[in-house]
Amino acid sequence: MTQSSKSFDLLQTSISSRARRGVLHTSHGDLQTPFFMPIATKGAVKTLSSLDVENLGSPILLSNTYHLYLRPGVDVFKEFGGLHRFMSWDGAILTDSGGYQVFSLGAMRKITEDGVVFASHIDGSRHELTPEKSIQIQQAIGSDIQMVLDECTPSGSTLDYLTDSVARTTRWAERCKVEFQKGREESNNPGSLLFGINQGGIVDDLRVEHARQMSRIGFDGYAIGGLSVGEQFVDSCRIVAALDQNLPTDAARYFMGGAQPHEIVEYVKRGVDMFDCVLPTRNARHGLLYRFRHHDLSSPDFYETVHVTNEQFKYSKEPLVVAEESDSVSQELSRYSLGYVRHLFTVEEMLGQRLVTLANVRFYLELMRRIRSAIADGQL
Amino acid sequence: MTQSSKSFDLLQTSISSRARRGVLHTSHGDLQTPFFMPIATKGAVKTLSSLDVENLGSPILLSNTYHLYLRPGVDVFKEFGGLHRFMSWDGAILTDSGGYQVFSLGAMRKITEDGVVFASHIDGSRHELTPEKSIQIQQAIGSDIQMVLDECTPSGSTLDYLTDSVARTTRWAERCKVEFQKGREESNNPGSLLFGINQGGIVDDLRVEHARQMSRIGFDGYAIGGLSVGEQFVDSCRIVAALDQNLPTDAARYFMGGAQPHEIVEYVKRGVDMFDCVLPTRNARHGLLYRFRHHDLSSPDFYETVHVTNEQFKYSKEPLVVAEESDSVSQELSRYSLGYVRHLFTVEEMLGQRLVTLANVRFYLELMRRIRSAIADGQL
Repeated sequence: MTQSSKSFDLLQTSISSRARRGVLHTSHGDLQTPFFMPIATKGAVKTLSSLDVENLGSPILLSNTYHLYLRPGVDVFKEFGGLHRFMSWDGAILTDSGGYQVFSLGAMRKITEDGVVFASHIDGSRHELTPEKSIQIQQAIGSDIQMVLDECTPSGSTLDYLTDSVARTTRWAERCKVEFQKGREESNNPGSLLFGINQGGIVDDLRVEHARQMSRIGFDGYAIGGLSVGEQFVDSCRIVAALDQNLPTDAARYFMGGAQPHEIVEYVKRGVDMFDCVLPTRNARHGLLYRFRHHDLSSPDFYETVHVTNEQFKYSKEPLVVAEESDSVSQELSRYSLGYVRHLFTVEEMLGQRLVTLANVRFYLELMRRIRSAIADGQL
Repeated sequence: MTQSSKSFDLLQTSISSRARRGVLHTSHGDLQTPFFMPIATKGAVKTLSSLDVENLGSPILLSNTYHLYLRPGVDVFKEFGGLHRFMSWDGAILTDSGGYQVFSLGAMRKITEDGVVFASHIDGSRHELTPEKSIQIQQAIGSDIQMVLDECTPSGSTLDYLTDSVARTTRWAERCKVEFQKGREESNNPGSLLFGINQGGIVDDLRVEHARQMSRIGFDGYAIGGLSVGEQFVDSCRIVAALDQNLPTDAARYFMGGAQPHEIVEYVKRGVDMFDCVLPTRNARHGLLYRFRHHDLSSPDFYETVHVTNEQFKYSKEPLVVAEESDSVSQELSRYSLGYVRHLFTVEEMLGQRLVTLANVRFYLELMRRIRSAIADGQL
C-alpha cells in the first residue's frame, strides 16, 4: 500500500505564508521541493538531450503517456525496461495519465464510465484509455511518479457536469490505485509513487469535498488539475488556498499545467510543492526569453520576457545569459550575444531555439532555487 | 604581399602515394593537414553551437559569404568586429567568395566582365557581386581564409564557354588579390590568407594551364573548384592528379564541395590537403548515419551509412556511437541507442537531427585523424 508519509518529508513551513520546503523521495533521487519539471513530451525536452537536462541541474522531468503510448509504444518500453533506459536519463520522471491529451482531442473522443475511447491524432486509429490501462502504460514506462486518470473539465462547465465528472474521477482514482498496487512489483519501476488528482472547476465546495475523497483513498501526493485551462488567476489562487487547508500536509502537492513565474510564486505561497509548465520551452521556440530583473520575488516584476527576434537586438552584444553561476550551461549561454541569437532566429537556424530553450529552462530552475532559498530565509 | 611559403609547411609526403601531411598557419591556429571543414552556412553548423564544434575538436569551419552578406549583413560584422566574435568561435574560419551560391540562382543572376548581378533568394532585391565586393565582404567577416570570386562552370559546359569562363576567372582572381592587399590591414582580420581557385571543367589542358596562371599570380593556397557539380568520380580523380603536378607543392590544396569518405581518401592520395562537405550535416538531418566498419582506409568499404529511421532499429540498444575515445561528445553520443534516435526522428524531435549531426561530423573529423595517421605511418 502507498503511504504518503513515506514519500514526502515536510522540512519547513514559511513564517510569513503557507509556502513549504520539503523532500520528495523517488526511486531516482530525493527532490527538494518546491521544484519545477521541464516537459519531455515525447521522451525528449524539445531540442535538448538527457545530458543537457542533467547539465541544467533538473532532478526530474515530465513525459506524456498519451504520446509515448502511441509512439514508440508499450512494447518498446518493455524491451528497454522503461523510459529511463530508453532516453538514458537517471533522474526522476513523472508521467501524466494520458487523459489530458485524450480529452483535448475533442470530437475525436467519447467518455463512458469505463474510460475514454479516442482516435489517434496520428493515423485516426481507435484506442481505449481506461484507468487500468493508463496505469499499465505508466508501469511499462516505469515513471517514478504516476498519475491517476481524471477528467480535466473544461473551463465554464456547468455545476451538474462538474459534479458528475468529479464523482467519476473519484471512482477512476480508486480503480487506478487498485491497478497500481496490483502491477507495481512486476512493473518497470517497483518503487514508483501514485498521485491523485483534484478536480471541481472553480467551485470551492466541490474542490474541497473532492480533496477529502482523494485523501480518504490515500495517495503519495495530490495534484490540482483543471486550473490552467482558461480560469482567472484570482479564482485559481482562491481554489489553491482552499485546497491547502484540505489536503494532507504530509504529502506533496502538484499544480498541473501552465504557470508563469509570478504565478508559481503565488501558488508556492499557498502551499504548492511541484510545477510543470510548457511555457519556457514552447515560448523559447518562438524566441521569447525569460530573464530576471531583480531578486525580490514578492514583487511581480522580478522577471521580464523579451523577444530576441526584435530588431532592437540586431547589434546587441549583451549575452543571452549573464553567467552568475559556474555551471557549464550558464557558461556556454553567456558566450552568445542577443545579436547572434536574433540572427539565428532570423535565418531559421534550430540552434536559436535550442539556446533560448536552455536559457528558459535554466531560468525556471533558478527561480525554484531562489524560491526554496527565500522560504528557508523566511522571505516568502 | 601574400607568400605561400609563409602559410603552409609541408611536413611529409607519403612513400606510397602523393598524400601529404602539413601545417596551415592561420591567425586562429595552426591546422594539421589534411583536414575537413564542417559547414556553418549562415554562421552556425546546423543544430550545433560553436562550443559543440569546439568540443568535436574541429579547428576550423566554413561559412558562406552569400548568406552572411544578405543576413545579418556587413554592418553587423563591422559592429561585432567579424564573424569570430559574432558567433563566439575562436578557431579558424574559411569563407567562400559567394560566387557559388550566386551562380546557383540560375535565372536570377547575370554575369558580366565586372561581376554578377543577382536577385536575393529571400526578397528578390537586386545586388551586385564583383571580385572587389566579395573580398570586401570577406574582410568584414574577418575570415582566416578568403576565396577569390570565380565562376563554377556547370557540368557539361562547352569548350568555348569553359575557355572564356576560365580566362575571366583568372582576371577576377587578379582583381581579388589587388583588393585583398589593399584592404587587409584595415580589415577585421589582417592576418587572413587568400586562396585562388582552379577551374576548367574536366578538360585537362585547360585545368593545367589555369593552374599555372593562378600559380603565377601567387596565392596562399589553391582550391580545385567545379568538380562536385555532377562529374564522374573517375574524371575528378584524373583532374586532381594532373593538378597535383602543376600546383606549387609548398601551398595548401583545397578540394571544394561534396566528397564522400572514400572519395576524400582518393583525393588525399592525389595530393589534396583540405576538404569541406555538406553531406555529413545534411544527411544527418535526414537520419543517415556514417560509421566505420574497419580501420583499413585503402578498402572503400571502410565505412557504411545506415538510415536510423529504419524499422529494424525500433528495439535496437546499439549505441549511436561506440565511444572509443574519451572526448565529451563521444561519451554523450554513446549514451543514446539507435532505438531512441529512431524514435526521435519518428516523432520529429529536433534532438534526433542534432545527435546524428554530432555523430557524422565526429565521423568526418575522425576520418581525417585516421588519414593523417596513415600518412605518417606510410600506409596511404
